[in-house]
Amino acid sequence: MSEKLLPYPLDRPIGIFDSGVGGLTVLKALRRKLPHRDFVYLGDTARVPYGRKPAAMVAEFAYGITEFLRQIGVEGVVIACNTASASALPELAGHFSIPIWGVIEPGVEAAARLTRTGRVGVIGTKGTIASGAYQRRLERRGLTVWAQDCPMLVHIVEEGLAGSPECDLLLHHYLDGRAAIDTLILGCTHYPLLHDAIQRVVGDSVTLVDSAESLAQAVNGSMGADPPAAAPGRIVHFVTGDPLAFAHTSEVIGEVAGEVVPLPVTELIRLQSR
Amino acid sequence: MSEKLLPYPLDRPIGIFDSGVGGLTVLKALRRKLPHRDFVYLGDTARVPYGRKPAAMVAEFAYGITEFLRQIGVEGVVIACNTASASALPELAGHFSIPIWGVIEPGVEAAARLTRTGRVGVIGTKGTIASGAYQRRLERRGLTVWAQDCPMLVHIVEEGLAGSPECDLLLHHYLDGRAAIDTLILGCTHYPLLHDAIQRVVGDSVTLVDSAESLAQAVNGSMGADPPAAAPGRIVHFVTGDPLAFAHTSEVIGEVAGEVVPLPVTELIRLQSR
Repeated sequence: MSEKLLPYPLDRPIGIFDSGVGGLTVLKALRRKLPHRDFVYLGDTARVPYGRKPAAMVAEFAYGITEFLRQIGVEGVVIACNTASASALPELAGHFSIPIWGVIEPGVEAAARLTRTGRVGVIGTKGTIASGAYQRRLERRGLTVWAQDCPMLVHIVEEGLAGSPECDLLLHHYLDGRAAIDTLILGCTHYPLLHDAIQRVVGDSVTLVDSAESLAQAVNGSMGADPPAAAPGRIVHFVTGDPLAFAHTSEVIGEVAGEVVPLPVTELIRLQSR
Repeated sequence: MSEKLLPYPLDRPIGIFDSGVGGLTVLKALRRKLPHRDFVYLGDTARVPYGRKPAAMVAEFAYGITEFLRQIGVEGVVIACNTASASALPELAGHFSIPIWGVIEPGVEAAARLTRTGRVGVIGTKGTIASGAYQRRLERRGLTVWAQDCPMLVHIVEEGLAGSPECDLLLHHYLDGRAAIDTLILGCTHYPLLHDAIQRVVGDSVTLVDSAESLAQAVNGSMGADPPAAAPGRIVHFVTGDPLAFAHTSEVIGEVAGEVVPLPVTELIRLQSR
């Protein structure tokens, strides 16, 4: 059992994973809905970014991580990474008996609810956009879709360069050629950290959709009541890269980390062999 | 002894390390000078990039890695990373008894030899430029220095986006404001992979300096004769991140990898505690 790796016992935690620090935006939204719930966050920083890696490789990573979280004793797993949701969610949901949530469906639902013109844009990593996961779901609802991959934006966030000249240059490059849309899905958990800069570039007539809120609502709905504890829930972070670097990066992007435990990536690779 | 981690015995190998795949450009230059020599390459991909991390953190990483390579049995260590050379070389050279080479001094020497006007530029990571390591050495030789940090360029290379529109946008952003220089040091081992794009932006009147060649000459000079073997030297790559991802990235940037062995970053962290 991997449970012994926990620094202290947790009470029916929810697992949540991302390639790096971006998923902390999802964790934050979840904590607002479920303030007394314990969480295990796994940041696969040794293998960030997922966005340009082959879909089959990312699906393998996601399988190993979900198996690790299951062994830790989580009650459900949130894939707080669009690339991994796009390439792995259906297969994982079919294989594991605990509930598994992705970020794509909640984002699509929110966009469909918010659009007035029926013209929706989505931006994401190369992997997410190439998978067509958003486009298919949006078109199935009769919406017209404009999609753009933005491979450099995840690095803007991880470098702490949100709002920098480089950030604005790249946003104009990726967004100035957009079709007429009234809603734009931020299809990468890193992008909410660029919310204000993106809003400036696309203007106030475009509504930005961050799927974290809708996702948190879905998880809240299916997990039942928040434990009636007085104490705030605890968080343990497992990171496959350097723990100090994780704390440093999450500080750079303005997210507060809990206890950080190093997890050798070899442990996850072992769990990938089915 | 970490020597047992080698997949097969090597003959008096030289160790070489970098935060990621960039150091492969240095390995390539070394192999041209020393084709029969065995090499151990360590890519600390679990903790890439080093460029924005605090100097003391990078110095710790470099210490653990050098100790690991020493235990493997290398005859000398090449720090094929400007950020680590800038923050760790003097201390490491004082602590270890095997020879340790960095990339900064060879680059400075080459630039001093090549400049006609005495006006030299240097580009690198935030850490390298902030350390002032290049600037001090160049100014000590009476040269006038223009320095610029380019935090996004390492990601352009690792994303396989050399020559892309994003690459050109960022190069113009970083380089268009340069002073009148006739020589430009590529102060990051990733940048030689952007050589042609950089040359287009600065024009033919500026000579680009890649320190890998000068470094290879220095190593060649102090290691004595290449072993008189008929067979080409062997290479073992240790990577702290995902081995498949390393092979994939090095393929994306057009460098051929040898045998790739996963090395848990926890093993290096253990060696950092002195």
